[in-house]
Amino acid sequence: MTTLSPTPRSTLTRKKNRAATDRQALYDVLDAALICHLGLVLHGSPVVLPTGYGRDGDTVYFHGSTGSGNLRAAAEGIDVCLTVTLLDGIVYARSLNNHSMNYRCAVVHGNRCAVVHGNAKRVDSPEEKTHGLKVVTEHLAPGSWDYARGVTAKELASVVVLSLDLAEASVKIRAGEPGEEPEDEHADHIWAGVVPVQTTFGAPVTASYVPGGFAVPGHITRARGR
Amino acid sequence: MTTLSPTPRSTLTRKKNRAATDRQALYDVLDAALICHLGLVLHGSPVVLPTGYGRDGDTVYFHGSTGSGNLRAAAEGIDVCLTVTLLDGIVYARSLNNHSMNYRCAVVHGNRCAVVHGNAKRVDSPEEKTHGLKVVTEHLAPGSWDYARGVTAKELASVVVLSLDLAEASVKIRAGEPGEEPEDEHADHIWAGVVPVQTTFGAPVTASYVPGGFAVPGHITRARGR
Repeated sequence: MTTLSPTPRSTLTRKKNRAATDRQALYDVLDAALICHLGLVLHGSPVVLPTGYGRDGDTVYFHGSTGSGNLRAAAEGIDVCLTVTLLDGIVYARSLNNHSMNYRCAVVHGNRCAVVHGNAKRVDSPEEKTHGLKVVTEHLAPGSWDYARGVTAKELASVVVLSLDLAEASVKIRAGEPGEEPEDEHADHIWAGVVPVQTTFGAPVTASYVPGGFAVPGHITRARGR
Repeated sequence: MTTLSPTPRSTLTRKKNRAATDRQALYDVLDAALICHLGLVLHGSPVVLPTGYGRDGDTVYFHGSTGSGNLRAAAEGIDVCLTVTLLDGIVYARSLNNHSMNYRCAVVHGNRCAVVHGNAKRVDSPEEKTHGLKVVTEHLAPGSWDYARGVTAKELASVVVLSLDLAEASVKIRAGEPGEEPEDEHADHIWAGVVPVQTTFGAPVTASYVPGGFAVPGHITRARGR
């Protein structure tokens, strides 16, 4: 088991008991969530946008259109912050001040955010660009890579793939019961507890243009359907 | 019905058909989500963190501990970006390149992010600070404000409340069926459709220290329980 090596920037400044410096916990959070929020600085101002991503070992890949100004900026090698949050519960304490949330949150900083160009004018390989796309696709839609119609050269050229290593990352988790002040511990007239929050998948909805009677493929029902 | 007045920063640079410049849509997204991701620039680098929030009219409130370096920075009046995303579905197109997500996303920029001090050394009122806390609390835990033990002066002093107006905001929504290339429209051997994604609440879990037989209060079962 490897532990993370947080830098000053990725070290949580408070509630350190919620910081689990365990690399497996980081992997688990990154693998369990569906989208991330990507932060970057544009013209001096912060911008935060949701996007898909995927993890392969100690690398996170994400992608976007070459027409996206935000991702073009990230592709220049600027600093980014990729944050993934899973909300697990609403914590009702006896006092308002101790109301809280149960959650799992991974924060990855990167000033080495690299674009995977995969075109002949640059040095890195089309193979890595295709691999990055596969990682992102399989994270969101497991099984689609082998099932759906593949990416053409023209489509590949229209996509920016970026990679971010997990060298500078932290994970923060809050779980369990409410915290209470001593003065509230015996306030037995007030309920306290946790309302669990879950992300669930509904039954797949077949597109209108698909021929009638087409069964939803097993790779979708197994991973995402019910 | 008021429409938003997006600035260059809040105007979406691509897929403009997904940008609904309707203020009600912005309100709906902000009201439906549970947490936001707050971006700010610290020491020149972007930082993105999840946090609670709440909306009152055209103001978004969020809060944190006075011990939080990130929120202390925001309290200095620096630029922030508050992003709220609801993931509604995973879109399986016939081609990998058209795989997508259905989502609703609100992005609020603010360079007038204001701390609501509510202490005697500053000019603004304790009433507004308390109001901001109420808005945030009621967003996460409707009904708790009147039910739980109230905030003491000491607790109030330990919290930073910030407000952000919705002057510079945008909302982006993707819904409906997959998009397909003309070459895939008749590829009837490939399934296509949407797997809905939902956020659901589990049955409330009463804390271990609450006396046995204590029924979960109605304001919780109505808003958050099942």
